[in-house]
Amino acid sequence: MPNSRNHCSLEFLGRYGLGVLVTAVWLGRTGGCPCQLHPEPPPASLPQTSKKLVNSVAGCADDALAGLVACNPSLQLLQGHRVALRSDLDSLKGRVALLSGGGSGHEPAHAGFIGKGMLTGVIAGAVFTSPAVGSILAAIRAVAQAGTVGTLLIVKNYTGDRLNFGLAREQARAEGIPVEMVVVGDDSAFTVLKKAGRRGLCGTVLIHKVAGALAEAGVGLEEITDRVSVVAKAMGTLGVSLSSCSVPGSKPTFELAADEVELGLGIHGEAGVRRIKMAPADEIVALMLDHMTSSSNASHVPVQPGSSVVLMVNNLGGLSFLELGIIADAAVRSLEGRGVKIARALVGTFMSALEMPGISLTLLLVDEPLLKLIDAETTASAWPNMAKVWVTGRKRSRAAPTEPLAAPDSTAAAGAASKQTVLVLERVCTTLLGLEEHLNALDRAAGDGDCGSTHSRAARAIQGWLKEGPPPASPAQLLSKLSFLLLEKMGGSSGALYGLFLTAAAQPLKAKTDLPAWSAAMDAGLAAMQKYGKAAPGDRTMLDSLWAAGQELQAWRSPGANLLQILTKAVKSAEAAAEATKNMEAGAGRASYISSARLDQPDPGAVAAAAILRAILEVLQSQGV
Amino acid sequence: MPNSRNHCSLEFLGRYGLGVLVTAVWLGRTGGCPCQLHPEPPPASLPQTSKKLVNSVAGCADDALAGLVACNPSLQLLQGHRVALRSDLDSLKGRVALLSGGGSGHEPAHAGFIGKGMLTGVIAGAVFTSPAVGSILAAIRAVAQAGTVGTLLIVKNYTGDRLNFGLAREQARAEGIPVEMVVVGDDSAFTVLKKAGRRGLCGTVLIHKVAGALAEAGVGLEEITDRVSVVAKAMGTLGVSLSSCSVPGSKPTFELAADEVELGLGIHGEAGVRRIKMAPADEIVALMLDHMTSSSNASHVPVQPGSSVVLMVNNLGGLSFLELGIIADAAVRSLEGRGVKIARALVGTFMSALEMPGISLTLLLVDEPLLKLIDAETTASAWPNMAKVWVTGRKRSRAAPTEPLAAPDSTAAAGAASKQTVLVLERVCTTLLGLEEHLNALDRAAGDGDCGSTHSRAARAIQGWLKEGPPPASPAQLLSKLSFLLLEKMGGSSGALYGLFLTAAAQPLKAKTDLPAWSAAMDAGLAAMQKYGKAAPGDRTMLDSLWAAGQELQAWRSPGANLLQILTKAVKSAEAAAEATKNMEAGAGRASYISSARLDQPDPGAVAAAAILRAILEVLQSQGV
Repeated sequence: MPNSRNHCSLEFLGRYGLGVLVTAVWLGRTGGCPCQLHPEPPPASLPQTSKKLVNSVAGCADDALAGLVACNPSLQLLQGHRVALRSDLDSLKGRVALLSGGGSGHEPAHAGFIGKGMLTGVIAGAVFTSPAVGSILAAIRAVAQAGTVGTLLIVKNYTGDRLNFGLAREQARAEGIPVEMVVVGDDSAFTVLKKAGRRGLCGTVLIHKVAGALAEAGVGLEEITDRVSVVAKAMGTLGVSLSSCSVPGSKPTFELAADEVELGLGIHGEAGVRRIKMAPADEIVALMLDHMTSSSNASHVPVQPGSSVVLMVNNLGGLSFLELGIIADAAVRSLEGRGVKIARALVGTFMSALEMPGISLTLLLVDEPLLKLIDAETTASAWPNMAKVWVTGRKRSRAAPTEPLAAPDSTAAAGAASKQTVLVLERVCTTLLGLEEHLNALDRAAGDGDCGSTHSRAARAIQGWLKEGPPPASPAQLLSKLSFLLLEKMGGSSGALYGLFLTAAAQPLKAKTDLPAWSAAMDAGLAAMQKYGKAAPGDRTMLDSLWAAGQELQAWRSPGANLLQILTKAVKSAEAAAEATKNMEAGAGRASYISSARLDQPDPGAVAAAAILRAILEVLQSQGV
Repeated sequence: MPNSRNHCSLEFLGRYGLGVLVTAVWLGRTGGCPCQLHPEPPPASLPQTSKKLVNSVAGCADDALAGLVACNPSLQLLQGHRVALRSDLDSLKGRVALLSGGGSGHEPAHAGFIGKGMLTGVIAGAVFTSPAVGSILAAIRAVAQAGTVGTLLIVKNYTGDRLNFGLAREQARAEGIPVEMVVVGDDSAFTVLKKAGRRGLCGTVLIHKVAGALAEAGVGLEEITDRVSVVAKAMGTLGVSLSSCSVPGSKPTFELAADEVELGLGIHGEAGVRRIKMAPADEIVALMLDHMTSSSNASHVPVQPGSSVVLMVNNLGGLSFLELGIIADAAVRSLEGRGVKIARALVGTFMSALEMPGISLTLLLVDEPLLKLIDAETTASAWPNMAKVWVTGRKRSRAAPTEPLAAPDSTAAAGAASKQTVLVLERVCTTLLGLEEHLNALDRAAGDGDCGSTHSRAARAIQGWLKEGPPPASPAQLLSKLSFLLLEKMGGSSGALYGLFLTAAAQPLKAKTDLPAWSAAMDAGLAAMQKYGKAAPGDRTMLDSLWAAGQELQAWRSPGANLLQILTKAVKSAEAAAEATKNMEAGAGRASYISSARLDQPDPGAVAAAAILRAILEVLQSQGV
């Protein structure tokens, strides 16, 4: 029921409830391969059934096309038919019209390739089923009545499509409409050719592009037909998949073992020519390219060292785009390793087989005139933004940026201060190492129990670093260095938070290193932690003890303030704040997901921060600062 | 190991063979949610493991980014880092640079959105893991050293990303580089807000677009930061999925029953806020839009009747594009049903969660100035070709074409001929009905056993049609009508093949109806069948008997040829050819897949065609033509 918004089955659903849909989708039907090039799939001994986001099994193709048209103002549906046409059809007077189509389930093909510079319209069948002759004829009539001077039908080589498009063509010609037809067979799977010929796969999209560029340039029907017929013979496509797909309401059409992949499959869930063992992407791609280009394969594409090609890396539907990128990388390296020059590389979803988790590779031999047609502008929504630059031969990386020179530091302290710094750092390290088990135990109640280990890792990193030489004499440089060190060696959120604190704290110390500057450093560090970590005092984090200390240290800003006296108050305040976290609900960090559990121990991060402050105080006291 | 082409694990593989990869991928690891907004996933009681097209688990993110850059000459990698940058970086002097990124596994985000008018570069972490601070800093330095006047970091709201991008920002600022940061949180899932805020989801891509258009227009860092911060608050995103995804080497992070879908999930395989029962797409979309726009939801987007929005329908990775279209259709209807005006609708894969079979909907409130920024040109490869026209309010269909008037037929025969036609057709029908069981039996040996039923369906259709009134008097019109009738009522390949034969055969009979014209009609029909059906004589199809008859009927072209005498020879020849098919191997059609089976019965299609010819002969003989 093309173009109907009220499917019978949907009405039925409304009446009988959801159970019907679920049952309908679950019970499934055994879907034969509509390309008629393959025997019936194996009988229904497969375990999985299809789970789909659809309204009704019967309405899938209508709804999907309606959605594409609704979201793309450049398209319109043809009333009464599952046909989409350019909405600016009446601007095409005197031009050649290009129609394509076939079964649904290959989206974005074919409707995604309608637009200026590509297709004039498409006729969509039910899922994996050739479209109705009457709708193909209606599309031909519609573009003819809009004033186009002839129509080229671009048809994938499947018996059903050949017959239905062929019949519509004969009917239209009987009405006096000039109609030509190009049958695309780009499949490189079968090493021995059957009479039915090669199947039409993703390469068909390149034919849409080339024909579209020619039609847009005002070339006549006969010449377009001749030229794309030549192009169609200069390409090959091969697919590989991790498993099958399932037609809405049906079960998957084949099954693979966990360590197998299917090679040379079609786009209707039909099985391929060979089942191979799982292997790294590089090996699978090399195998595919070997197969596609081997002259012993009757359906090979004659790509050789020195050949120039357009490469398409097509997602068959359900593969992650992460994997698609990995395959694209492998394909480019493998082709260039064979001496093949890649003119353009298209990576994306062009011709899918529903949600099949696999890819196809297409190679099209090109010369400069053909490349111009590939590059020509188009408004088709599914044609990618593509740089009109050769892939092979360009520089793919740029040099890393230079590191800034360390700024000369006017605050560089004396050697004695540096020795004091070493003492402070050493005491901090031994303190943290001594607390490892205690902190881990506290963390086990609220997190993953590694807070002590993380801090010990930091302590050991600092100890190692101190062995390499004296620390920077300038406080700003010292804090910056510690920031990079902790980020790298402590890792995780703690490393980043300490890194943030230290980096921000270093800034006020660049100009001055007096007590007001140190208070400003503390505040800057606290502000950065709050800003990026999104914790506030009271959230049961390390910030609680640091923030309490910072409040006390603001007294350093007063003239004549006493360093040790105020620091002593700050450390006591920090320890009290750490202790107080035992009564807090976690408001940020990992412990915030222990929502209702009573946390009756203090936060280990807060305890560690307070202990660091006390270690600093104790060294300064012992040094009699 | 960013940007390394020789991963340790790959070398390991080369040494210890494939079993290692398979084992590594199979054994899996339990992947925590790196966004740190969620507790650890449930322990590993899940049955499925991850099957991926990768080279090594450790190298996935490097390889995927390398592939994207290799295929897109507008991009370059930054040496030593998992960073991609515009290759025309040096043309950006005096402009603001835009950097984004985050964990890998969200492709095409973010590298697919690098280009003129969008991002300057991206920093990619490992799969679902925040990128290294050092690489973020390197990217900031690289764009600064290329002469840009400041950098905006566009960061999705996850603790790890906030901390790492924040720290790199502080480090860069300490070096004197102006760097701002916008944290995007567009998630509308949580009705009560946690302190961590809303997660960054697909709406982030719209921020890339808006910021990119502003930067391209030469707007300054502060103004871009302010403006996109406002835009980021005017949007909401909600996801739904049919199942989980799995990080390479890991198991899926959650499991769903066969009749459940997960609502409000993130983009790292973490579970959502609610599990709902499977329902039709329309209901699920309505529920999502209700949730996203309800003012009782603290994270809602305030879309109301009369609001203007940009709609994004985002494939989370593994959903079929057929379903994506169905969801897009449902979303447009539901929004317009609520009185919301859709300015633009973007449908595709923008921000994925590996191969998660689900979608997210994003709504962004827009006015005309904002829409201009969304519409601005960009060369980013993953930004779709989008018509700059409002979705709501335009005409989505055009009227079906008019049917051509039946041409006046100069060959219209007398009423007596019409009566003879009826007799011929009736005899053909009774003959085919009588053969039903025999033809089915023949077909069971080679096909699906319905050849007799198919021909009986055709016969009953013709009988019904004859009851409606006399057939057209002109042979050309008669054959054309029969063509449409059989196509519609007989169906399948047989209907299309008879339709093709009759449509083509009708053409030579338009001008003349003498014996040479009838021979020409037979030849035209045979040519059409061969052309579109790809069968040749000897392929064990209905063509065998028709072709044999056609050869004899060429004698009709000689002056003074005898109709019945030659037709009698033709029928005998057809019957002999049908009988001879029992020794043929099938070269086309369904039986061609019975490759090695000995077919010792004649082809039922050939038998049927011969029987039709004999029925015609017998009536003509009895009428004494």
